[in-house]
Amino acid sequence: MSTVVVGYVPKPEGEAALRAAVSEAKRREVTLVVVDSHRGGRDFDSDAADDAEASLTTVKALLEESGVDYEIRQLVRGYEPSEDLLSIAEASDAELLVIGLRRRSPVGKLILGSNAQRVLLDAHCPVLAVKGS
Amino acid sequence: MSTVVVGYVPKPEGEAALRAAVSEAKRREVTLVVVDSHRGGRDFDSDAADDAEASLTTVKALLEESGVDYEIRQLVRGYEPSEDLLSIAEASDAELLVIGLRRRSPVGKLILGSNAQRVLLDAHCPVLAVKGS
Repeated sequence: MSTVVVGYVPKPEGEAALRAAVSEAKRREVTLVVVDSHRGGRDFDSDAADDAEASLTTVKALLEESGVDYEIRQLVRGYEPSEDLLSIAEASDAELLVIGLRRRSPVGKLILGSNAQRVLLDAHCPVLAVKGS
Repeated sequence: MSTVVVGYVPKPEGEAALRAAVSEAKRREVTLVVVDSHRGGRDFDSDAADDAEASLTTVKALLEESGVDYEIRQLVRGYEPSEDLLSIAEASDAELLVIGLRRRSPVGKLILGSNAQRVLLDAHCPVLAVKGS
């Protein structure tokens, strides 16, 4: 079973990636796998867990409305998001991986983060990179 | 008119990008714009022009066989390939830009070249990055 896999974060670039991934999964008529990865650790307290849950509720509503066939994988394993994304893409036989790119850093400089670079270079399938607005 | 725009180079990653772009243009039922950009200058002598012509013949054969609606833009304007690609994507109202990524440098290190980074960060539309085999 081929899939489209998307790395979701509750930020403008994550929302843009999710919307693009929904379109791609529909166009390709395959299941969409949404990866919501948290490193966990000391910063991932009960408040963080509540926030993650709240953002996932919004994601589920969007997915239900889209009519696309989907799965959500919520991971708190202590890995970098890129590692979780790459391993799930491989395990899910992804034909496309979708990631969001931050458009600008707080000081207005364009950046391509280390997670994005890792995914672009190490993915076994094509990677669609979309920017948040 | 919406399009898919692809940056072509006569290398494995350029061929992979071209094949992916053909699939995307078909899937989206839009015109494919193939950008073949050369910086020109002293290194672009008549031999280089002949090589460019020969590789374009192969490209045209692949495009004709695919049945996709296409245009080829061959540019020798002294600009970086990323600049040519970005300006044509904008002018062609691209809904998707496709680029090839080199898998490895001669010493086996993974690299994300400056042209690829520039396109990923500055494109006004989503960018599909594919690796050569």
